[in-house]
Parts: sequence; structure tokens; C-alpha cells
Amino acid sequence: MSKVICDITVSVDGYSAGHDQTEERPFGDDGGDGSGNRLHAWMFDTPDENRAEVDRMAAARAFIMGRNMFGPVRGAWDRPWNGWWGDDPPFHAPVFVLTHHAREPRSMDGGTTFHFVTDGITSALAQARAAAGGGDVAIQGGANTINQFLAAGLADELRLHVVPFTLGAGTRLFEGVPPLELEQVSSRSASLVTHVTYRVLSPR
Amino acid sequence: MSKVICDITVSVDGYSAGHDQTEERPFGDDGGDGSGNRLHAWMFDTPDENRAEVDRMAAARAFIMGRNMFGPVRGAWDRPWNGWWGDDPPFHAPVFVLTHHAREPRSMDGGTTFHFVTDGITSALAQARAAAGGGDVAIQGGANTINQFLAAGLADELRLHVVPFTLGAGTRLFEGVPPLELEQVSSRSASLVTHVTYRVLSPR
Repeated sequence: MSKVICDITVSVDGYSAGHDQTEERPFGDDGGDGSGNRLHAWMFDTPDENRAEVDRMAAARAFIMGRNMFGPVRGAWDRPWNGWWGDDPPFHAPVFVLTHHAREPRSMDGGTTFHFVTDGITSALAQARAAAGGGDVAIQGGANTINQFLAAGLADELRLHVVPFTLGAGTRLFEGVPPLELEQVSSRSASLVTHVTYRVLSPR
Repeated sequence: MSKVICDITVSVDGYSAGHDQTEERPFGDDGGDGSGNRLHAWMFDTPDENRAEVDRMAAARAFIMGRNMFGPVRGAWDRPWNGWWGDDPPFHAPVFVLTHHAREPRSMDGGTTFHFVTDGITSALAQARAAAGGGDVAIQGGANTINQFLAAGLADELRLHVVPFTLGAGTRLFEGVPPLELEQVSSRSASLVTHVTYRVLSPR
């Protein structure tokens, strides 16, 4: 059955990004020296160890993301920006970007098309479901976006990739979300990350 | 080598207890119906599955805990209270209770003695180390107490038992602790909990 999956990497204390996102630092102040992406080091430094989780992530047939995950541009689309991922983004599927500012869809190489949704998460989900043609829809983050889907009771599954440091500040998963009942589906540890998958039973 | 180990059960969103602790609800509002201990259901409902982790917890030769973990009595010790655990507490070793109110040590059955420490965590740790005779010292919680040890750079290891629900409010692990560098040592999933052990490299 088609599922709505929230998939996100968080520090042990639950942050998916530090403060002060810039074009050079998509995840804000992550405590690193700015030269890399500490939160996602597990993906880039140890790809073989984590291939199953990355493949599972890529298997969704449509994606939804928040404006901050798409880019550092705020307000109107007053300069060119087509995501952090270059000409051939890793989604290879329709991606629905939540924004308050309308913009025409943008097709990229490899099958990714960015659609810009200005009327909220329910509309984005309806469009993503339709585009997924019976496949899964992945809510790719950031935490603010995932929190909205969790709070609205729209998520079926939560896949966490928990990395071994704390950030102490930033955008926190579960912030403002009513208490959730989950069911542990699986968990697996690699050298730089612990992967845990939960079924979302309900906000109670 | 003798280690200082922080061992604590937390909800997926990092809470070790809800608000409003009472004698009937040692962990405050944990979202349950008040009849049980949801956070620690993994320990009581599935002991066989989790025997290794419980044994490891009990292997420390001295324990430190905060006043709230010891009991609901606040202020002066103006009524009898010897912990939540009955006449034969599961520690079988010296337990150092952090409090602002002096009290004589209290010996229980089975080798547990509660000592009351009024001069802070460093003193408690010195006393616990001496009592442990070269064995490990376990900081048993709650989160406020563990946060103090983490912030002070006094913890060697952090053992988390992460349970599949969120609380949304209460006493949160890592609250007010400067960013920490950790190293994943092990992780294992049972049906009601994911156990993750980290080496604490440093507050940075």
C-alpha cells in the first residue's frame, strides 16, 4: 500500500539543522568547520555501509520538502535557484516544494521536476499522491515540514537516521507536535549512524 | 578501566519523564493511564529480550541519582521515604542521592545503602568512585542529573534506551548541555526499545 514516509537525519538531541542556514551551509551551524555536511556524513563518507537506507529513501515516487530544504533564498524568487543538488538532483521524480511564493515548475535532468506549492501541506500531499501513481510519498524535511505532517496525522512511517553528536540548538524534530504513539519496525546501526524506522500509530 | 556511565530511558523526543511527578506517578505525565510505567515497559514487560542491558545497568559498583529519581518528597525530609523500590532495591551497592537537604545514610536489604550528598555532583562522584573500589559508577538519572554530568564533562559513556513514543513535554535529556561529540559503540533493537551506547568524546 502506498505510504507517506517522513525520512530525516537528526542529531542525538533531535535537531535536523543548526541555526543560520546560508548557501554555503545548507544545514546551518552544525558544529563543523563549514567544510562539510556533518549531519549527513554517514551518507557521503560511508555509502556502502548505508546503501540499503539510501536506496529505500530514493524509492519514493514523489517527494515533498520545505522551502529551507530546497534552498536559502527567502521571500520572492528574486534570484535563480534550483536546489542544492546541481543539474541532476537525486530524486528522479516530482518534488513538491512548500513555499508562500508562486513559481512555475522547473524540470531538471534525470526526471526530477520541482513543483512549487503555495496552498499548504494537504494540497502538497494530494498533488504528490497523484504524481506518485500508487507509489510512496516521502516527506524529505526539514524538521519543520515533517513536524507539520506529523501534527496533522498525515504520516504513516518515520525513518530516523540518528547521528552521534548533539547540536543543542536549531530546528528540532517533534517541536510543537502533539504526543505520538509509534511502533518500532526496525533498527540498525552502522558506524556513523543508527537507523530506526517507526510506524506512526497516532497523535494521541 | 573504571567508567562513569549515564544510563537512561528516554522517549523518541528525548524526555526521561513527563511533568507533574507524584508518588503514584514517578515519571509524571507519561501519556499513559497512570496504571503503569510506560517509559520502562521494555524492562518490565519484556525482561528476557532485554536481560543483557538490565544486567549491564546493574553491574555498576556505585550509583548516583537526583532527588526526583529517589522520590517525590521535596524540601526537608519531613516524612519517611526510602526510594520507590521497597525494602530490597535493585542496586545492591551504595547509591548517592543528590539533595539540598542533609540526611543520615540509610541501609536497605540486599546491600543497597542510600547516601545523601548536599555538596554537588563533583563531591558525589568522588564519593561514588571511592565506594566503587575500581568498578564503574552509574549515573542513573533523571535527565536533569545526567545533564549536569554531561555539561561538566564528567561522563565517559552514555547508554540510551529509546522508547517508541513522544512525550512533548517534561524533563529533557541534553537540555542546556553544550554540544557533545559522541562515538557510537553499539546499538540493538528489541521489540519495545532501541538501545544505543555512545562513548562521550567531549563537550566541544
